Amino acid sequence: MKFNHFLLKMNLQMHKLYSLDELQEIISLKLEEEIFNSKPEPNGLYEPIRYLLALGGKRIRPALTLMAFNMYSEKIENAIDAAIALEVFHNFTLMHDDIMDNAEMRRGKTTVHIKYNTNTAILSGDAMMVLANQYIAKTPVEVLKPVFEVFNQTAMEVCEGQQYDMNFETLTQVSESEYIKMIRLKTSVLLAGALKIGAIIGGADQADTEALYRFGVNLGLAFQIKDDYLDVFGDERVFGKKIGGDILANKKTFLLIKALETVQGTTKDRLLEQISTTEAIPEEKIKLVTDIYRELNIDNVAKEKMNYFYTNAMLAFEQIKVNELFKTELRKLTGQLIERNN
Amino acid sequence: MKFNHFLLKMNLQMHKLYSLDELQEIISLKLEEEIFNSKPEPNGLYEPIRYLLALGGKRIRPALTLMAFNMYSEKIENAIDAAIALEVFHNFTLMHDDIMDNAEMRRGKTTVHIKYNTNTAILSGDAMMVLANQYIAKTPVEVLKPVFEVFNQTAMEVCEGQQYDMNFETLTQVSESEYIKMIRLKTSVLLAGALKIGAIIGGADQADTEALYRFGVNLGLAFQIKDDYLDVFGDERVFGKKIGGDILANKKTFLLIKALETVQGTTKDRLLEQISTTEAIPEEKIKLVTDIYRELNIDNVAKEKMNYFYTNAMLAFEQIKVNELFKTELRKLTGQLIERNN
Repeated sequence: MKFNHFLLKMNLQMHKLYSLDELQEIISLKLEEEIFNSKPEPNGLYEPIRYLLALGGKRIRPALTLMAFNMYSEKIENAIDAAIALEVFHNFTLMHDDIMDNAEMRRGKTTVHIKYNTNTAILSGDAMMVLANQYIAKTPVEVLKPVFEVFNQTAMEVCEGQQYDMNFETLTQVSESEYIKMIRLKTSVLLAGALKIGAIIGGADQADTEALYRFGVNLGLAFQIKDDYLDVFGDERVFGKKIGGDILANKKTFLLIKALETVQGTTKDRLLEQISTTEAIPEEKIKLVTDIYRELNIDNVAKEKMNYFYTNAMLAFEQIKVNELFKTELRKLTGQLIERNN
Repeated sequence: MKFNHFLLKMNLQMHKLYSLDELQEIISLKLEEEIFNSKPEPNGLYEPIRYLLALGGKRIRPALTLMAFNMYSEKIENAIDAAIALEVFHNFTLMHDDIMDNAEMRRGKTTVHIKYNTNTAILSGDAMMVLANQYIAKTPVEVLKPVFEVFNQTAMEVCEGQQYDMNFETLTQVSESEYIKMIRLKTSVLLAGALKIGAIIGGADQADTEALYRFGVNLGLAFQIKDDYLDVFGDERVFGKKIGGDILANKKTFLLIKALETVQGTTKDRLLEQISTTEAIPEEKIKLVTDIYRELNIDNVAKEKMNYFYTNAMLAFEQIKVNELFKTELRKLTGQLIERNN
């Protein structure tokens, strides 16, 4: 016991561990210095990039990169560029997705294609993807190739996920497995890729790298199903956006897909009627569909599925062969992401 | 003399030289095998990519990469992936530019955003940029970093060029130097980058690499001014598209910019009247503006500027320190590009 305690202290002395707050401060400073405080020309191209990035967000993806990296190394300067690349890439997808989804608001502010125009949002988005690649190119040369490959595969899968999501709009039926595949591509792989890239730069072995990737995929799936759940069963004051948005948009969420799988008789008729119109009175429609979800126990079905993926995530997490102390911050963030009510 | 002749033969035996036709055949086969014959899912994402790439074009950029590479090495397999990356990237810019310019036709066929829809053209374009990066990632690892950096800088500059081009639409006056800067970014750097990437992979020294880059920039500028010239003074049957398209669109070409710089008196009033309307009778407008250009000697001004950049290109070309024989094919292509009437 005493010897273990001693080893542990030695470990700590050899390898500095950063708290989530410290890492987010590092990310903020880097964005400030290199993006917000630089004013390259033409301004019409670069200003919308700064505008969107400055709207904030939790900077989860770069934090995941740095946390995975910090399990193996303390030289944050080796991973910070890749971390920024992931944040810039994520915001690029938001800029283009908002055009495609015709979204007017993002984080409480006007979206880029509304504030400027669609051409600007297309072109500044393109420049953001190039900017993300410029940050990837700063990865230490010994690991540039594998990091670049993970980044590219992730980026392509995110495009595939967005395509499946758009396809769903015109389909009458989507199966649970098709839905899980879509959210894995559209959301989860970017979290998983962020972790994997951090692990590779940190020098993790292949087993750890893959465990972190599996952890990220399952965490992302749990996260997205929670998102679907909160849109219906969340507390509006805490959730931060209107409850029932997905219901009003007839969006094929996990809840609707499971409801359509089990609903029968007159309840089925009522549900199909609701999701075939966009002209219902909003409050009534939300109440009617929510009541059907409760009647079908969909709230608990969603919670169970979320727990299933969360459990899978934690099983993968346990397989990471680093000292438990090195896992503390990532475990904390995971808890926050999954316990969140917003 | 005899000794030089002997050395030359030795060189030839040590280093295979490919003809332009052979290189274009290699490019075609690679596109066929890896892109046209593969059918990844979701089809809605990948089909528009194949559609646009299959419309053809002269494959100039990948040919430039392979020709620059072949000056230093015969192992085409080391450079073919980067060559394909440049062709895919070029077509990505066409897909997004056609949305921004509201263009309905491309190489005699319907543009992607018209054939499918705008969202498809945005997302498949994004996927094309990722695909281009996937090909860049296959570059031999010893030179991956510098190649990736040139590729990123080029890609960013192409975005900047497109932004300046869009800015010009709302400006009343554009100077010659602003115009040259725009076409350098929008068109020339991609030709120059293609050559530079080939040189780097081939193992050229820095002086040769930079000479090839300068050659490419100046060739691109000459090429673009020729394009502006042919749009007005070309032969419709040879040019392959309607003469006067730029005039009808009131586009700020090299010709219009130089005309506005020198025009005076009543001719100035007539020119300003023409370019402030979009409702003139097409044939009349084209004739009126063309006559003014001739009156102002703009056709010769354009030819002189083209020759200036072409001369600069050839000066850079002479500085490349490889055996004259290794330059034959690139010299031939350059001649074709600059002597072309279409």
